[in-house]
Amino acid sequence: ASASDLIRATLFPGDGIGPEIAESVKQVFKAAEVPIEWEEHYVGQEIDPRTQSFLTWESLESVRKNKVGLKGPMATPIGKGHRSLNLTLRKELNLYANVRPCYSLPGYKTRYDDVNLITIRENTEGEYSGLEHQVVRGVVESLKIITRQASLRVAEYAFHYAKSHGRDRVSAIHKANIMQKTDGLFLKCCREVAEKYPEIKYEEVVIDNCCMMLVKNPALFDVLVMPNLYGDIISDLCAGLIGGLGLTPSCNIGEGGIALAEAVHGSAPDIAGKNLANPTALVLSAVTMLRHLELHDKADRIQNAILKTIAEGKYRTADLGGSSSTTDFTKSIIDHL
Amino acid sequence: ASASDLIRATLFPGDGIGPEIAESVKQVFKAAEVPIEWEEHYVGQEIDPRTQSFLTWESLESVRKNKVGLKGPMATPIGKGHRSLNLTLRKELNLYANVRPCYSLPGYKTRYDDVNLITIRENTEGEYSGLEHQVVRGVVESLKIITRQASLRVAEYAFHYAKSHGRDRVSAIHKANIMQKTDGLFLKCCREVAEKYPEIKYEEVVIDNCCMMLVKNPALFDVLVMPNLYGDIISDLCAGLIGGLGLTPSCNIGEGGIALAEAVHGSAPDIAGKNLANPTALVLSAVTMLRHLELHDKADRIQNAILKTIAEGKYRTADLGGSSSTTDFTKSIIDHL
Ligand SMILES: CC(C)[C@H](C(=O)O)[C@@H](O)C(=O)O
Ligand SMILES: CC(C)[C@H](C(=O)O)[C@@H](O)C(=O)O
Repeated sequence: ASASDLIRATLFPGDGIGPEIAESVKQVFKAAEVPIEWEEHYVGQEIDPRTQSFLTWESLESVRKNKVGLKGPMATPIGKGHRSLNLTLRKELNLYANVRPCYSLPGYKTRYDDVNLITIRENTEGEYSGLEHQVVRGVVESLKIITRQASLRVAEYAFHYAKSHGRDRVSAIHKANIMQKTDGLFLKCCREVAEKYPEIKYEEVVIDNCCMMLVKNPALFDVLVMPNLYGDIISDLCAGLIGGLGLTPSCNIGEGGIALAEAVHGSAPDIAGKNLANPTALVLSAVTMLRHLELHDKADRIQNAILKTIAEGKYRTADLGGSSSTTDFTKSIIDHL
Repeated sequence: ASASDLIRATLFPGDGIGPEIAESVKQVFKAAEVPIEWEEHYVGQEIDPRTQSFLTWESLESVRKNKVGLKGPMATPIGKGHRSLNLTLRKELNLYANVRPCYSLPGYKTRYDDVNLITIRENTEGEYSGLEHQVVRGVVESLKIITRQASLRVAEYAFHYAKSHGRDRVSAIHKANIMQKTDGLFLKCCREVAEKYPEIKYEEVVIDNCCMMLVKNPALFDVLVMPNLYGDIISDLCAGLIGGLGLTPSCNIGEGGIALAEAVHGSAPDIAGKNLANPTALVLSAVTMLRHLELHDKADRIQNAILKTIAEGKYRTADLGGSSSTTDFTKSIIDHL
């Protein structure tokens, strides 16, 4: 392919094990002849006053221009007076939906073999408003904000996602029996959007009951959409069902067609640089980026290769109970392409 | 025992299947010669202006006087202008802690056989403040309130519980990385109390991570203490691990030594009056009431009898996949006393 056929995508290798697993993605993409050219950006050493964080303005501009990107784990540097890297990305790029496909991986045994669901989390408001204050000594309050605009936007995304991915049900998760106005508004928006998608079943499930149902029988769910904090909780719960954050892809959707895929696990400084990290979550996240670009052939090829590698069980990194190196695991993915 | 030796306890049989399962408790208590005399109260047919709910003032006075009570499921009557029955009880009786022991039941198979934990939920504030309003059209907010007083109170209860029940670890569940002031205050209070209990290990776990760990390996946890909403979510999640709300006891602790045990499952109107209901959650809740009264011999006897009935598997109600009647199941408990 000539340079002009290539799609430019931003790559944040991130910290700790980030560079090693990012290298896996690059090798797998190269072997699969994915027409992507990476534009790498790193977390800065100083606070960039334009972003109030260690993320440079240039790195955010790169995602804005390319509209697609992939992000490894980032360790928020310690110190005061700056914003967390993850929250800066969400705010600055207006990443309004966090999408996490979660499915049981054949060959990697957990207590569940019947998980196949998608959590879609509103990513900009709710309990994450940052508005908190002390009323009097010993009494503090925090504000949860729900807006019609953000609720409609994430609901639209969820129904669109369900329809375009051949899924037939959307469950809105809430606690409107207690927070009638805030979660009530969220539900109202979901209902409005649901009416435009008569072919998709729509239901509302209270969060406590949802968690109970998820651990009893996750197969009851298909696409779940919810406000920020519930999404934070439920997406991690679901990751736990299939083995943890090392195995689950994630993609953030922003205004103007931006997609920033990310591995949501930590940077694992203890094993960084030792060729021991599991690249699965980052490779699968890269696959969600390909799907966003509608490069479904490449996405399928890579996803199948990684699923086969895991199912075969010959190469397994330490986190999955094996002793393979990152590079051997990556080679095995490439061999299965 | 003469009447003067008897401890008076309030009983709210509740709605739907409530009266049938309350009858089970009465029979089991009688057979086990528990020195308790029940004082029964029912949900009223009209709103009592003194409570703004269908709960009568007299019924609340009964709990205040007796200091112990047992509550079956209550269906909040439909209509406006009154408070939910559960929230009325919590508010009026200042039931500040909800305690739910959750353990795997030998003989009743779920995906987990290694659950043995206690969730202790702050029950009066947080997201349940009821303070919500519309800022402008399409923008609503709700207030989460955390106070030093309520946080210390529930933390004290949790550590006291851990110590007096021979448990060696308390985990405080929070989202202080996002809600630094509210959840931060909650943690600060937990830390203060922890210092008074050097023999109990103390740790802090972020709620999303906690849910992931719970579904992967619940044996990691012992006693969990947390603000209201997290407690609502996590206690139901934990109930799901061992089979659902039909099997999990619950007890509310109030100011002045009040203990109101309750079955937290619904009133199941579809099977009400048909002798099909499972009395397990209510009987086990009654056991927590006995423990509160330090009637440990009786508590052990009844708890063992119900565990044996379930382990034996001969009598099993429909919700557990069997076809036993409530009365046969109850007889079996009595036979195992
Ligand atoms: C690190 C934390 C601020 C973040 C969140 O709460 O959103 C994380 O849990 C996530 O899900 O990306
Ligand atoms: C019914 C509802 C208001 C209640 C709550 O949210 O507290 C319930 O879920 C519970 O846990 O007792």
